[in-house]
Amino acid sequence: MKKLINDPLKVADELVEGLVDAYNGECRHVGTRSIVKTHIPENKVALLVGGGSGHEPIYHGLVGRNLADGAACGDIFAAPPPNIVFEATEAVHRGKGVLYLYGNYAGDVMNFDIGAELADDEEIEVRTVLIWDDVCSAPPSQKQNRRGIAGLVPVVKITGAASQSVATLAELEAVAKKAVLQTRSVGVSMSPGSIPATGKPTFEIDPDKIGLGMGIHGEPGVGEIPMATADELSARMLQYIFEDFEKDDEVEPLAAGDEVLLFVNSLGATTMMELLIALRAAKKCLAEKGIQIFDVLVGPLVTCQEMSGISFSLTRLDDELKKYWEMPCQSVCFSKMEGRYGG
Amino acid sequence: MKKLINDPLKVADELVEGLVDAYNGECRHVGTRSIVKTHIPENKVALLVGGGSGHEPIYHGLVGRNLADGAACGDIFAAPPPNIVFEATEAVHRGKGVLYLYGNYAGDVMNFDIGAELADDEEIEVRTVLIWDDVCSAPPSQKQNRRGIAGLVPVVKITGAASQSVATLAELEAVAKKAVLQTRSVGVSMSPGSIPATGKPTFEIDPDKIGLGMGIHGEPGVGEIPMATADELSARMLQYIFEDFEKDDEVEPLAAGDEVLLFVNSLGATTMMELLIALRAAKKCLAEKGIQIFDVLVGPLVTCQEMSGISFSLTRLDDELKKYWEMPCQSVCFSKMEGRYGG
Repeated sequence: MKKLINDPLKVADELVEGLVDAYNGECRHVGTRSIVKTHIPENKVALLVGGGSGHEPIYHGLVGRNLADGAACGDIFAAPPPNIVFEATEAVHRGKGVLYLYGNYAGDVMNFDIGAELADDEEIEVRTVLIWDDVCSAPPSQKQNRRGIAGLVPVVKITGAASQSVATLAELEAVAKKAVLQTRSVGVSMSPGSIPATGKPTFEIDPDKIGLGMGIHGEPGVGEIPMATADELSARMLQYIFEDFEKDDEVEPLAAGDEVLLFVNSLGATTMMELLIALRAAKKCLAEKGIQIFDVLVGPLVTCQEMSGISFSLTRLDDELKKYWEMPCQSVCFSKMEGRYGG
Repeated sequence: MKKLINDPLKVADELVEGLVDAYNGECRHVGTRSIVKTHIPENKVALLVGGGSGHEPIYHGLVGRNLADGAACGDIFAAPPPNIVFEATEAVHRGKGVLYLYGNYAGDVMNFDIGAELADDEEIEVRTVLIWDDVCSAPPSQKQNRRGIAGLVPVVKITGAASQSVATLAELEAVAKKAVLQTRSVGVSMSPGSIPATGKPTFEIDPDKIGLGMGIHGEPGVGEIPMATADELSARMLQYIFEDFEKDDEVEPLAAGDEVLLFVNSLGATTMMELLIALRAAKKCLAEKGIQIFDVLVGPLVTCQEMSGISFSLTRLDDELKKYWEMPCQSVCFSKMEGRYGG
């Protein structure tokens, strides 16, 4: 794989510099490797995201208007160390506390937790909401052990919108928890990405197989299945999500009349053409169950270099989540204006 | 290459169906293979784009609010036939004529021109503006022969915004022509995409070479050069754009104080990480010349399946173009809210 980079060991630093450049003055580079909005109002409850680099546009590409206030950026596929988390925390704090919102990976949890302790020493209140949307990574009874995958995009978008108006950190935490609880994803992979420092593939898979439920770094899921058509695979993937809502005592099953946000994500090399063909299949599956699509999100937002594969995420929306979803937002990589496409 | 599709010969039809699904009621499928906005006001000057499929999100992903009113969609890498162009033309027309705005490829020109004749028979006035931003595909003296590549995104965005307020087709044509004249791009490719119907690569290139000035289907450009770092290659690519503005009698050279829109595009497999590293390099080159970055656009918007490579596009903005660039817009794949990232 030919990569357009400079020094393979400096890609994480240089990409964050490029990201700050892309924000053209409206975000700044903080400390070792964090990106933080230039203007955060006093007394705003702050929202901090973060995680390993190499998955762009997430996590750091979700900093922006009505989105996250900052991101703590790790090296490629590695959690941000505690000092980076703490530097970002100090930079986004405006007196009302900071919500940490990130995907559930052991390294991230450890480092963000130490970052929170460092923040506590400086009397900055921190609360944490973990995103664990990958239904193939643990059964419903152990859902807190699941990985965070593409569902983090709607969760961060909704929480970022809420962070503009809530009065307290506890209120923001409640919105984030609700969004996490109603968001479930299933991913598949067909071929690996590459590790920028070595050029090596991130995992191996047979040429005629699909990794069902595989995580965004190639973590094992439900197992390998034969290559399938877009229609077959999409139906099977959505079935896992439907069953998960059914089996989980904490939520109602998805039912006719429910309104959902449908997100079809590419892991990198899978093209928009394929995403749209999968989306067409997903719409039929949802229509058969009478589930209403409130809005659609489609694109390569949670990636792992040139990994091929897709994920579906469903977020069931109530009036509160809808209100926050509907707010416009703007980052370099993910924007949404008010209203839809008409006019 | 494993592709997530159903029937390899139906991908163009199915992806347009998926695109219409993604618009969730706000666009409709028209005729053989066109997508058109559901609500287009009476007496609006209409904007129609189009071209081959397989390059998603362009061209048909640029239909939306303050963007194109419709798109005529060809088969994979093939121009839309005249009947499709005509069906789309009839569907977007609201009594004030239709501007055709698309990339300069012989097949597209032939078919859109016949479509315009069919429209003329129905007394629908059509004007055409071709996008020819690829500076490596012909010298400045023959710039009307150049290919249209990624520069079509800012041109369509600006023209779509203008189409909301202009009173006549001639006014819209003038805005589009100005945007084209001030937009120049240079692309490179490092590895091919695949043809969905056959799985075959779209072209061949040495493992240690880069196709400098290569078109989005793998058309030859300036030549093959050794693989380079992101910094070296970005500087060299931008130099071609600077020189092109200098050599072209119809425009002023890019000078200190000029304001530009900088667009860094991925052809598919090249990651957002690499785009950001290239963007960092580009910003330095522009700063050295005192050219001001008014806004930045970055992402995989003009693609060719899994082709790897990038392009830079610069659009020099005057007050009129800035006004239209600043308007919010919304499509499934390309949105922009009012203002930037602060607040």
